[in-house]
Amino acid sequence: MHNFVFHNPTKILFGKQTLPSIGPETKAFGTRALLVYGQQSLKQNGTYQQITQSLADAGVAITELGNIQANPLLSKVREGILVAKQEKIEVVIGAGGGSVIDTAKAIAAGAVVEHDVWKFFTGKKGIKGTLPVNTVLTLPASGSEMNSGMVLTHDEKRQKFGFGHRFLFPKTSILDPELSYTVPPDYTAYGAVDAISHILEFYLTTKDPDTPVQDKFMEGLIASIMAACNRCLKDPTDYGGRASLMWSATLALNGLTAAGLGRVGFPMHLLEHSLSGLYNTAHGAGLAALLPGWLHYYQENAPERLAMLGKGVFPGTIPADVPATDMADHFIDLLLQWLRQINVPTSLPELGVAAADIPTIAEHSCGLAKIWRLREYSQPLLENILFRCC
Amino acid sequence: MHNFVFHNPTKILFGKQTLPSIGPETKAFGTRALLVYGQQSLKQNGTYQQITQSLADAGVAITELGNIQANPLLSKVREGILVAKQEKIEVVIGAGGGSVIDTAKAIAAGAVVEHDVWKFFTGKKGIKGTLPVNTVLTLPASGSEMNSGMVLTHDEKRQKFGFGHRFLFPKTSILDPELSYTVPPDYTAYGAVDAISHILEFYLTTKDPDTPVQDKFMEGLIASIMAACNRCLKDPTDYGGRASLMWSATLALNGLTAAGLGRVGFPMHLLEHSLSGLYNTAHGAGLAALLPGWLHYYQENAPERLAMLGKGVFPGTIPADVPATDMADHFIDLLLQWLRQINVPTSLPELGVAAADIPTIAEHSCGLAKIWRLREYSQPLLENILFRCC
Repeated sequence: MHNFVFHNPTKILFGKQTLPSIGPETKAFGTRALLVYGQQSLKQNGTYQQITQSLADAGVAITELGNIQANPLLSKVREGILVAKQEKIEVVIGAGGGSVIDTAKAIAAGAVVEHDVWKFFTGKKGIKGTLPVNTVLTLPASGSEMNSGMVLTHDEKRQKFGFGHRFLFPKTSILDPELSYTVPPDYTAYGAVDAISHILEFYLTTKDPDTPVQDKFMEGLIASIMAACNRCLKDPTDYGGRASLMWSATLALNGLTAAGLGRVGFPMHLLEHSLSGLYNTAHGAGLAALLPGWLHYYQENAPERLAMLGKGVFPGTIPADVPATDMADHFIDLLLQWLRQINVPTSLPELGVAAADIPTIAEHSCGLAKIWRLREYSQPLLENILFRCC
Repeated sequence: MHNFVFHNPTKILFGKQTLPSIGPETKAFGTRALLVYGQQSLKQNGTYQQITQSLADAGVAITELGNIQANPLLSKVREGILVAKQEKIEVVIGAGGGSVIDTAKAIAAGAVVEHDVWKFFTGKKGIKGTLPVNTVLTLPASGSEMNSGMVLTHDEKRQKFGFGHRFLFPKTSILDPELSYTVPPDYTAYGAVDAISHILEFYLTTKDPDTPVQDKFMEGLIASIMAACNRCLKDPTDYGGRASLMWSATLALNGLTAAGLGRVGFPMHLLEHSLSGLYNTAHGAGLAALLPGWLHYYQENAPERLAMLGKGVFPGTIPADVPATDMADHFIDLLLQWLRQINVPTSLPELGVAAADIPTIAEHSCGLAKIWRLREYSQPLLENILFRCC
């Protein structure tokens, strides 16, 4: 096990009827809030009304920034920062999925400095503090509600960059699984694939062969996410299914899965950020389209961890008396079967991306790999993986 | 899944050579520290010298309170509180296992009030703040290094009471697995049994049948703890084994395993606190002696969860096509086999406690059950379990 620091100070309020706590939980940090949210769904399902009511009851004045889109844009963050400064905002609330929460975090970071917020993402400026951020999660997927990361897309350059810092942990996150009842089947599935991808990338890219505690935790989470996703697709108002999906997606990327693994890569996200930066695909759909091809690359080059993962996720299903490459193959088959069952794309062509586009995606990914300091992902290697996804 | 609040702000510094951070991590909270520690081992293995050196280098003045024993005593805590007040202590450091850390927490709580510290444990006074506490863990078992609980024994009344409050989370805990190399085989095994018991009690006493995320996490932790304990007993300086044991014991009782399970009981600890309160047995030894009898009670009365646990902890080993009671039996057999292998007592007589003592233990446990508000544990029920342990 590698050395690590684990320090996650986010307070989670989980369960039914936790939403009315947003007022008092926000009041603790200030009385002037910026409420960041997405498009129609928050107002359609009544969540917006409950949030504003709770904030009003607590005496918190609200300024709004709606219409945040998937793959959130720098321009929108800049707009939010301007508003936050003008309105002397004291606390930012992100109510939605990862895109909304990341936008809230970026505004909170940009509102306390004079320079442009993008400088954090390009590494030109360090972060020294932020406004406090609270969140109301409606779409389990990114884990941003309990971690210190954020991802933003530069409008013109189409660069989708990530940035992480301990100041970016939300103060309080409200996780009410009932708020995710109205997430449609495709986004429910994309969220599950996103969460599973976070775990798979850690599990398969660690160089530490001796992390049994983390391995079992990750295997259990993947199995939980798959089962929960199936339940949610069968019955969108299955509370237990929605609760399991929400909590396991949060745990997938709150620091615990990676703690002790040492340096890990994020190759799937490297590729997908370039993909959705260029083509504005849904993040989870992009990951699903890349997943089988990427796993086949591992199956050929480093099958041992994949075989172990298969045994852990599908105990008793994968034959134990065959070579690791065969076990890895079995695992990929079972996962692919599940991806088809939940009706997500499983190759780039299914996503509308052609083989001819691969060099461009690989070039962008390679540029990103340099910024993320993942220099082991050369352009030929990334092209190799991408071609397996066609 | 039940509603829950999860908020664990303790910073964990995990790994080799993390001990020298104790100076700066303490300096962040003050320059006058009370260093609480146990008996010989800390000085014998050089940990004491490293801690005092690091504190001196950081400019932190130390007052010492050594000689803390297992099943720590109220009298010693009162002594520490007096010293803390006299010396105007700003931060308390617990360097040792659960007994030492709990003593440090109790001193930190008592040093900021005028009334006697025992009033927290009897529920006569509420806690409003504490001095900050840092810890250096040398014996993985109790989980106190990353939770908000503490346990103390009243010298004269022989009551061993627990108390928990969010103010009692340590600020920073240093977990260097190498510091546990000198833990002897019996205490290594007791620690593993303690950690496993924490999980078993949650797993078996929850009334919520729909907690798949938590179930898989707990099953994985139990399997990890057993495997890690075996490694440590085989080679006390197996870093990976010591690291797995330390981290899994911490995760076993840091709030994550219980989050979402709803109200859980703590029957084994109820019995064991009375046992060690009366007989001053080592906590882990007492738990080991109670474990098989307690599990047999479940096997007869509620075998389903026990059967499921067996499948999760020993995948592929327990036959799946037999009734739950038989699967539960298999699980108990395998666990008992392991307890014998790690050489811990597996019944009360092995611990030197005779059947004639049972009514007294049950009476004490029943009194404790009332304080813990676990009224379902009547004296006849507790006697029933205890007789199975003979």
